[in-house]
Amino acid sequence: MQRKIILIGCGVVGQGFLEILVKKKELLDAKFGFEPLLVGVADMRMGSILVPEGMDIPKFLEHLKAHGTVHDFPAEGATIGLNSLDLIKEADADIMVEVTFTDIKTGEPATSHIKAAFEKGMCVATTNKGPITLHFKELCQLAQRKNALFRYEGVVMSGTPIFDLLEYCLAVNDIKEIKGILNGTTNFMLTKMEEENMSYPDALALAQKLGYAEADPTADVEGFDALAKVVILSNVVLGGSIKPSDAAERVGISGITLEDIRKAKEEGMRYKLVGSTRIEHGKIIASVKPVKLALSHPLAGVSGAVNALTFTTDLSGDITIQGPGAGKLETGFAIMIDVLNMHREM
Amino acid sequence: MQRKIILIGCGVVGQGFLEILVKKKELLDAKFGFEPLLVGVADMRMGSILVPEGMDIPKFLEHLKAHGTVHDFPAEGATIGLNSLDLIKEADADIMVEVTFTDIKTGEPATSHIKAAFEKGMCVATTNKGPITLHFKELCQLAQRKNALFRYEGVVMSGTPIFDLLEYCLAVNDIKEIKGILNGTTNFMLTKMEEENMSYPDALALAQKLGYAEADPTADVEGFDALAKVVILSNVVLGGSIKPSDAAERVGISGITLEDIRKAKEEGMRYKLVGSTRIEHGKIIASVKPVKLALSHPLAGVSGAVNALTFTTDLSGDITIQGPGAGKLETGFAIMIDVLNMHREM
Repeated sequence: MQRKIILIGCGVVGQGFLEILVKKKELLDAKFGFEPLLVGVADMRMGSILVPEGMDIPKFLEHLKAHGTVHDFPAEGATIGLNSLDLIKEADADIMVEVTFTDIKTGEPATSHIKAAFEKGMCVATTNKGPITLHFKELCQLAQRKNALFRYEGVVMSGTPIFDLLEYCLAVNDIKEIKGILNGTTNFMLTKMEEENMSYPDALALAQKLGYAEADPTADVEGFDALAKVVILSNVVLGGSIKPSDAAERVGISGITLEDIRKAKEEGMRYKLVGSTRIEHGKIIASVKPVKLALSHPLAGVSGAVNALTFTTDLSGDITIQGPGAGKLETGFAIMIDVLNMHREM
Repeated sequence: MQRKIILIGCGVVGQGFLEILVKKKELLDAKFGFEPLLVGVADMRMGSILVPEGMDIPKFLEHLKAHGTVHDFPAEGATIGLNSLDLIKEADADIMVEVTFTDIKTGEPATSHIKAAFEKGMCVATTNKGPITLHFKELCQLAQRKNALFRYEGVVMSGTPIFDLLEYCLAVNDIKEIKGILNGTTNFMLTKMEEENMSYPDALALAQKLGYAEADPTADVEGFDALAKVVILSNVVLGGSIKPSDAAERVGISGITLEDIRKAKEEGMRYKLVGSTRIEHGKIIASVKPVKLALSHPLAGVSGAVNALTFTTDLSGDITIQGPGAGKLETGFAIMIDVLNMHREM
């Protein structure tokens, strides 16, 4: 069945998603009866285009690479230059993919995009942490009222399944605690410090050189990024409504020395930056801090720039999932699986 | 919506499933619109009962505990003493749960049960390795012809999601390789040998004492159990049609000494009994053997009587899932999630 899609934000993730649509075209049609029709794209830097009859996706991707703009893509009946909100309002689409940049303070422009799409009854897939962190309950209620589906697998651990895992594979379970390694950059640094005896400044410099850490590494090394994900998990999975400032603790790895790591190693332990959340006496207890884990702990073996989460459940015991926490194809895949699962449920 | 269920086999797994139905009754109804109606039970040792109006499940479980039989459960309009195949033929049910004992040589009586259910258009959930190992393709074809659903999450790693993970969370991915720790008993023994310097005979004796290993431990320690799961993964996930005898290698852990483990530890490595399968030049390469893994390998940190699998994919990178490989509630849950997902798709 044909599904009309608009793409809001056409950066790395949006392009990753389009590449997967091209690469898996035949499988999507043959196995899932899914035929995507890209009817509109809006991007802050690259302009916008609305084509009711749909665009040829491989040609569109080629055009993007060659010209770095979308508005001059040759397509009959195209409307160009609409701003993103107007494009959403004008478009006749089944699904909006929202992959604009994350603004964790305002949640904009993503939140307005998502609301506009729901108002029109469109289903929405996003990887944007902003709206999920700030407006999750409100957006869910609006989606429900408008009978629209809402998916956001990619906001935690990119395409490594978390929310779909709970929804389709662990449904019925009561989730008692969630605990994990939610920041690949700091896990990479701790691994280098332990395995190669690298100092903290050297490990940080290497992470920056490899593109894992930003020039200002505060969000990673002080635990803010991991905490944002803990807050999302607390609210989405445990039904809380907490803000980052409600966390019991937020300690990063900048205080961890090679000496600490050496000592832990002698005790058969290993430092990991662990984010965790659970409900105690009706209250969410969320934290991010370096924890010394026994080597036998499922999270102790998680090495390098990867993520992992352990769900403690009442029926299935402890279930741990480990995988990439970032990447063009990986995050593009998060959108792909959201769109596909919405297609299956529409 | 009411779903009529018959339960063939009422041992540990069948009772675990019924206990979950009782424990989660309200959630199943409120969240998923799922109302189970148990209309028949057949068990080799405990007899059979068919009650078209359905049985009170909590009372039925109490009766089982008190009397160890099913045929004398007081219910109006009950037909008792039918053999399992006749019960399947007589029953008016939507779903058959097949959890009889596994006979890996013949696949019976489970295979006949499943065929009879499909012939009547019933959907089937099973945890029985026999039919999946021996008759997977044939059963899938029959199910498709009869428009019936077929689920078997519990045949590998009990309720830890494998097949649902691929179906709902990693769909569209090309699975290039599957590699994992598929036998909890041997992993428990290796962990004891490494962490507590326990000899192989002592570790085996402890595993037997704790009920992990059988009196004749051959199936576990020589890798036959892990290989059976590798064969299932090869056929179900990679589309192969291999038998255990087609495996490239099957080596167990009985040749591993404390000295081997000590040496590996000195090298920063750890022995694990690893089952793996991949396609090379159109041919399945399946094996089970002890492998020395770097401590940073995702499978190296898997300690104790648990299982873990790594899927190497083309879009999502390496995804590893770890969890219990056995247990009453855990395997009962495998049936629960299969039944629930079939209900969602019916």
